[in-house]
Amino acid sequence: MRITCFIGSSRENGNTEILTDIVTKDIQHQKINLRKLNIKPIHDLRHDVNGFQPVDDDYDQIIEAFMESDLLVFSTPVYWYTMSGLMKNMVDRISHAIRDNRYPQFREQLKTKNAIVVTVGGDDPYIKGLPLIQQFKYTFDFLDINFPAYIIGEGHRPGDISQDKQAITQANLLNEKLKEVIAKGSF
Amino acid sequence: MRITCFIGSSRENGNTEILTDIVTKDIQHQKINLRKLNIKPIHDLRHDVNGFQPVDDDYDQIIEAFMESDLLVFSTPVYWYTMSGLMKNMVDRISHAIRDNRYPQFREQLKTKNAIVVTVGGDDPYIKGLPLIQQFKYTFDFLDINFPAYIIGEGHRPGDISQDKQAITQANLLNEKLKEVIAKGSF
Amino acid sequence: MRITCFIGSSRENGNTEILTDIVTKDIQHQKINLRKLNIKPIHDLRHDVNGFQPVDDDYDQIIEAFMESDLLVFSTPVYWYTMSGLMKNMVDRISHAIRDNRYPQFREQLKTKNAIVVTVGGDDPYIKGLPLIQQFKYTFDFLDINFPAYIIGEGHRPGDISQDKQAITQANLLNEKLKEVIAKGSF
Amino acid sequence: MRITCFIGSSRENGNTEILTDIVTKDIQHQKINLRKLNIKPIHDLRHDVNGFQPVDDDYDQIIEAFMESDLLVFSTPVYWYTMSGLMKNMVDRISHAIRDNRYPQFREQLKTKNAIVVTVGGDDPYIKGLPLIQQFKYTFDFLDINFPAYIIGEGHRPGDISQDKQAITQANLLNEKLKEVIAKGSF
Repeated sequence: MRITCFIGSSRENGNTEILTDIVTKDIQHQKINLRKLNIKPIHDLRHDVNGFQPVDDDYDQIIEAFMESDLLVFSTPVYWYTMSGLMKNMVDRISHAIRDNRYPQFREQLKTKNAIVVTVGGDDPYIKGLPLIQQFKYTFDFLDINFPAYIIGEGHRPGDISQDKQAITQANLLNEKLKEVIAKGSF
Repeated sequence: MRITCFIGSSRENGNTEILTDIVTKDIQHQKINLRKLNIKPIHDLRHDVNGFQPVDDDYDQIIEAFMESDLLVFSTPVYWYTMSGLMKNMVDRISHAIRDNRYPQFREQLKTKNAIVVTVGGDDPYIKGLPLIQQFKYTFDFLDINFPAYIIGEGHRPGDISQDKQAITQANLLNEKLKEVIAKGSF
Repeated sequence: MRITCFIGSSRENGNTEILTDIVTKDIQHQKINLRKLNIKPIHDLRHDVNGFQPVDDDYDQIIEAFMESDLLVFSTPVYWYTMSGLMKNMVDRISHAIRDNRYPQFREQLKTKNAIVVTVGGDDPYIKGLPLIQQFKYTFDFLDINFPAYIIGEGHRPGDISQDKQAITQANLLNEKLKEVIAKGSF
Repeated sequence: MRITCFIGSSRENGNTEILTDIVTKDIQHQKINLRKLNIKPIHDLRHDVNGFQPVDDDYDQIIEAFMESDLLVFSTPVYWYTMSGLMKNMVDRISHAIRDNRYPQFREQLKTKNAIVVTVGGDDPYIKGLPLIQQFKYTFDFLDINFPAYIIGEGHRPGDISQDKQAITQANLLNEKLKEVIAKGSF
């Protein structure tokens, strides 16, 4: 099972990344730090006579990571009660990617994918992070992506996440679960 | 009452902008098209020893528009069940702005502001757009911004919004309400 | 098109009922006041060896109203941010009704139904009433009931609803829409 | 710390009760099975000239349990995506209780209480149970009750909950946490 973690934080080693690292501990995976890529906001040309136009940035790396992975980990801090702008631009561009002639199988291949969301927030995330989870659910449903698990953690200052026992425990459980999934080959 | 509409669509004259224009019809206001500005994603340096650093882009225009307006209209299409990445980057940067030494009154001034959300989506927005509304509510609560109204509309292809009688009617009602508010001077 | 309004308020002529009456003005319909019926809480015997047992109360009237109606109007005040207990007991008993041998077609017939929700709350219902709408949506999806519209109104003291212009306008629009639906025969 | 668990299931030893029992294992507490009490739906007489009238049922037991407890555990299966009707009637009657002349300190005393929600559902409760959590949050906020934790579990058939490792683990963690809270005397 190939795994890619998309890290949406603007900070190095932020709480969300630490929590995500527990989920993937001792499991082979690649990590894409969105802050290190140049991803432009979508220009919605769905209804333009010429359709979407090629964009000169790093988004192809995202498309290719989606295509070659079985499990996509969306790892984002809660910024203003939803995903970071970095991650949002990545997600928005899916609308383009599923209509990109260079990747005619992309839309269909998504239907075989699994997704996990890991998110950490500072302002009552166990309550105020719930709409974010609902939005990811709608997104994955639209794309027919399986969504077996999410983890919400609480943390304000760097490293705080280590004190959220519940989130740490959930991350360890999910790590064990992923190892089982890898052993048997499917969710 | 000074009004600024922040337009988060990547398209010209999209459904959300049309609906927003009904809300502000015959009312003096300025409109800021986010797609025409260069706004970088936030680099969260809250906890860095040197704090946030100056960013070379157009965000100061946003800060100034916030400061000089009494009513902020957040106008965004529903992209993947939440605001567009363009608007999200604008919102994320508020975290920097409220700590920007050049605008020491910014945080305090926000408490006198009012906000309205106008959003149009193509996939059952009257249901699937609700988490977006909840997130704006949490955001405005955090900033002590008054949030008197929102409008959700449905539209897929350009111009569709004109057929959403409920949304159009709500926009007209809100337009009348704003004129009353302007006449009496407050919400 | 046969219409039944289920009134979940414990008060006569409450705000929710007034708003519902606008929706059904000049349209033939029946109204069932749940406060006048004896409906017991469900006793969940799905997994009991003998299954559900007959209950001696008025619930058969509800089942029959569901079966003979094309449009079901769920009219409930927002009590503690969700439907009233009166209405909740009615809804809970659907779990029994869809397994009731006396109504073998019930489950299947529900799939031809349409539902509308009308609700009025006193504490910021346009925000805090949204989870209630999401729950009705999940419920109707589970039962394959079409859910074309809902109206949220604000009111605290009896009669307040008449001052919620938006809700009144939505109710009038929905009334017109229903007349069109009746004229053409379907949603 | 005195603890009362309000059990809203209509079944004996349902999944939610099993999960709740883990939370309170080896901790002194009382348990109130709502199915064994006679609790009538609220008759909302807030705006009646004579106000609320005495109700001849078992609700005083609930008021007294609230008053004498420091921690209230709301334990309810997810029925149709929200709390059971049994529990909803109990919650609705709080509107009466906080205006009941026989308990003039009730409203004020609630502000010293803590609440936990334990809920188990059969249809994707980790997603579709989230609006229920939001509603409890709004309710506790209205009453100024502290809401330190909730647990969502998944289970369809009796006993299923034992296979939801995440929920069981969370319940055990919360049990440990409660023991610490008891030792130090406060949340």
